Amino acid sequence: MTVTFAPRILVQDVEEGHALAPRFPMGGLMPCVTTDAGDGAVLMIGWMNAEALRLTIETGEAHYFSRTRQAVWHKGATSGLIQRVVEMRIDDDQDALWLAVQVSGSGASCHVGYRSCFYRAVPFGAEAGEPLRFTEGERRFDPVAVYGDAPNPTVL
Amino acid sequence: MTVTFAPRILVQDVEEGHALAPRFPMGGLMPCVTTDAGDGAVLMIGWMNAEALRLTIETGEAHYFSRTRQAVWHKGATSGLIQRVVEMRIDDDQDALWLAVQVSGSGASCHVGYRSCFYRAVPFGAEAGEPLRFTEGERRFDPVAVYGDAPNPTVL
Repeated sequence: MTVTFAPRILVQDVEEGHALAPRFPMGGLMPCVTTDAGDGAVLMIGWMNAEALRLTIETGEAHYFSRTRQAVWHKGATSGLIQRVVEMRIDDDQDALWLAVQVSGSGASCHVGYRSCFYRAVPFGAEAGEPLRFTEGERRFDPVAVYGDAPNPTVL
Repeated sequence: MTVTFAPRILVQDVEEGHALAPRFPMGGLMPCVTTDAGDGAVLMIGWMNAEALRLTIETGEAHYFSRTRQAVWHKGATSGLIQRVVEMRIDDDQDALWLAVQVSGSGASCHVGYRSCFYRAVPFGAEAGEPLRFTEGERRFDPVAVYGDAPNPTVL
């Protein structure tokens, strides 16, 4: 079935209706949080434009929009680490997504090689200002072996 | 301890270092996903500017930046639904956050009254194009009773 997006006319319909009427508030993009369907760990926050959202819905595999490459990106196309969608949710005002996924291969989703992009804890409260703490002991894969000399997406 | 942010000089330091060197790529904001520390459910995706991040680290209570009101916002200041931080993580390139929290009171985090902002599932794959499905049976609170006639943050 072809996916179409409904117009946004009434707040009540956007918040309480059954029609998908997404908004892409950040320069044509919306944020997407992706969690591991197994244990609920947050793997990454990515970005989707309308085309990435449509492809994700139609294929059941996560597609994002790469801000670095300015292009839609089938996650895992290079690395083999495909994210198969298990559950997909949209938020109250329909400008953010939550994907629960199963990841192929090593199960990693982070370009640095870790399972989750969120591999460092920020101390807070009484420990505010202390150094970041690593929460994953080792990488799942070697990014040089997987991505070769492709440009690193991290922007300074 | 006063929280200071380190400069972003080398990609390797940003990705693999122990210094907090955040970037706010979306017009001075970074996305923050907030999960329930109890069961891992995604409650909301909010936005932080540098001040909201600093206040969250220092107080151990979630602060966001309201795009509607264009101001830093202590979550729960109006509703009483304070989010106490249990764990705080930053991502590989330090432009996204993950908070695991305990929510006061009714445990809700959504301005519509549900526990999670992500109370609707988007059908995908063989079910692509079907109507959204509600995943929470009932609201945790009545938004009119809590917020009165404050403007609804949903933007059409």
